[in-house]
Amino acid sequence: MPQLPDAQVDVSSSRGPIVLVVLDGLGGLPHPDTGRTELETAATPHLDSLAARSSLGMMDMVAPGITPGSGPGHLALFGYDPLETIIGRGVLSALGVGIDMRPGDVAARLNLATFDADGRVTDRRAGRPSDAEAQRVVARVMADLRQPAGAEVSLHPEKEHRVVLRIRGAGLGAEVTDTDPLDVGLPDLPCETRADDAASQRTAEIVRDVLGQVRHLLADEPALNGFLARGFAAFDPIPTQQERFGLRGLAIAKYPMYRGVAKLVGMEVRDVPGTNEETVALLEASWGDFDLYFLHFKDTDTRGHDGDFAGKVAAIVEIDALMPRIMALNPEVLIVTGDHSTPALHAEHSWHPVPVLIASDRVRPAAAAFGETTARSGDLGRFRACHLMSLALAHGQRLIKFGA
Amino acid sequence: MPQLPDAQVDVSSSRGPIVLVVLDGLGGLPHPDTGRTELETAATPHLDSLAARSSLGMMDMVAPGITPGSGPGHLALFGYDPLETIIGRGVLSALGVGIDMRPGDVAARLNLATFDADGRVTDRRAGRPSDAEAQRVVARVMADLRQPAGAEVSLHPEKEHRVVLRIRGAGLGAEVTDTDPLDVGLPDLPCETRADDAASQRTAEIVRDVLGQVRHLLADEPALNGFLARGFAAFDPIPTQQERFGLRGLAIAKYPMYRGVAKLVGMEVRDVPGTNEETVALLEASWGDFDLYFLHFKDTDTRGHDGDFAGKVAAIVEIDALMPRIMALNPEVLIVTGDHSTPALHAEHSWHPVPVLIASDRVRPAAAAFGETTARSGDLGRFRACHLMSLALAHGQRLIKFGA
Repeated sequence: MPQLPDAQVDVSSSRGPIVLVVLDGLGGLPHPDTGRTELETAATPHLDSLAARSSLGMMDMVAPGITPGSGPGHLALFGYDPLETIIGRGVLSALGVGIDMRPGDVAARLNLATFDADGRVTDRRAGRPSDAEAQRVVARVMADLRQPAGAEVSLHPEKEHRVVLRIRGAGLGAEVTDTDPLDVGLPDLPCETRADDAASQRTAEIVRDVLGQVRHLLADEPALNGFLARGFAAFDPIPTQQERFGLRGLAIAKYPMYRGVAKLVGMEVRDVPGTNEETVALLEASWGDFDLYFLHFKDTDTRGHDGDFAGKVAAIVEIDALMPRIMALNPEVLIVTGDHSTPALHAEHSWHPVPVLIASDRVRPAAAAFGETTARSGDLGRFRACHLMSLALAHGQRLIKFGA
Repeated sequence: MPQLPDAQVDVSSSRGPIVLVVLDGLGGLPHPDTGRTELETAATPHLDSLAARSSLGMMDMVAPGITPGSGPGHLALFGYDPLETIIGRGVLSALGVGIDMRPGDVAARLNLATFDADGRVTDRRAGRPSDAEAQRVVARVMADLRQPAGAEVSLHPEKEHRVVLRIRGAGLGAEVTDTDPLDVGLPDLPCETRADDAASQRTAEIVRDVLGQVRHLLADEPALNGFLARGFAAFDPIPTQQERFGLRGLAIAKYPMYRGVAKLVGMEVRDVPGTNEETVALLEASWGDFDLYFLHFKDTDTRGHDGDFAGKVAAIVEIDALMPRIMALNPEVLIVTGDHSTPALHAEHSWHPVPVLIASDRVRPAAAAFGETTARSGDLGRFRACHLMSLALAHGQRLIKFGA
């Protein structure tokens, strides 16, 4: 199904803001004892009252049966078909950490790792060092690294063992292989081209040179003595939400990954909230400055990954308690959904469709409860998540009629 | 909506088998006296108990409003978009009869027919001869047929009046017209090219020559004295299910057509069951050797074509009684559905969506009954049937995550 014809956006109108609340991994599976999912088990009086004045539906984030990563899941929520807009993990990480990325830059995710004297990996995460330790080691490398001719390499600590590599220069390709052997007791893999193009060949040479230098520069470090690289990707900007939908967006998200996707689509990213409460406080503080507010809450996904049904229920209850403050702002459109399912009983992302709620003054409510069961008989029906932004714009009175 | 990105298949995993049970023409229309369809009228305790631990949904086999033939219906079930994968009837019939087909071969369906002295068709099925009678006449023709220069023509009896024509040779096209006038009292139509290409012109000449020879060779036969040809198609192999999904499949189907489609997508076809019970017995006998088992049951469609509501109900009840033996094998994924609707009240294939049930350990059940009404509020929602295989792979834990 084709996406929104962008020309339908009514840029002349100046309507109230759209708020997109994402509970990461919201979709669940029924508990065998009760037949109710995490969302259906949680006591959510505020989401339920919101559902009573919302249209409900179920979204396929990518396509039926496909389990999305967080990147594709959020791209879809932001109005981009994830089957057409492929963004590499390295670029997402780089954007998320706030690294300046320009067209043609190549980025990759690095893990600080521990190698033994024979060059075998003994810990793929170098014992999960503190942020300060990782920063110290990265600074050592950057101080002495011999830059390749005609290119500029930089290393950017993210969190614990996670570091982002950026290579800037003319004529770089990103069709190169990961060096992470994905298991301990093995040497790292050489970075090689997947395609036979000169640009990727050049990138592979630079990566091999840099990773080799690092092993020498950090030879005296007991644990943090090398890097494993994966997810190489070139930065290729995409049309922004402002260009496509006339929306100036603000992302309020704690984790780099989500800030990264938001930046990629042109949202502004300001302060980083430390807690869920702060996420809502930042929304209140910036209220009125933007057309679209994206709020990201991570705990639902984390508890789902842990296989912690009760913990995921509690995480939903915590967000429900914050909903009155969001509702009190009286947004023109308020959407609550997830970026994929992470059922506690699956303990991983899954392919199951994700419930969504759109509250506005022009809805067809069907139930006074928000859950997978009510959502699947809602007025929004079953749709691909990349259409959500069209629905948000429509409910926000920001689209003009298609055809005469 | 695009189909499954094939690269998402996790070929390294070795999960339990997927069983696809197809009740041909399953979908129905409500009986005016009860408001219940054939499936909803049938007492199906086993399908109902299965529904209670399944996700349900409704499938458009091709697209809304489109009535599928058996070929497109099954192609969709097997994971191929029937709007993109067009297989001619002649090729399907040839594969179904077990004829060796090579790329470039052209096949068509022939009917043994009765012509009068003026060349008019008096019986388009030649009185539905016995298989032996048809074989005798075909042998007569093959013994004396003068083969065209540079091509090899063969005739293969199928069942009763049905015969398959195969033409093998370099540079043959299949854009040629049928010769069946579709009514009695008319002469047969000349085989002509639909496109203006030399390859199809050559095929049309061969067909005209062969059908002309047949009329002379069989001039002394009272009833079986000619052929009508239709459904010309060239054989163009498609990527197999093993290539696309990593699935080794076994088809257990009584009728040539369904075995033909299964072969086309790379399934193995072994013994031909004589009864529905034997279909299940063959499943049991081969259990563990394959990743995907396709079981085809025809009676529901036949009774639907007959306009026999009660007969179709009885056919469903008969399959329900066999379900415990399939369920006892404990497949990783068990799917029950149809290849299209054949409502008894319509007495033909129809465009109505087809109910589907997917049982696995990761489902969102919605009802303890399997029917059109419960299926349309099920968690699978409404989807194109060519996505069913993605869902089967997902429920079978055979897909990797899409994107990071």
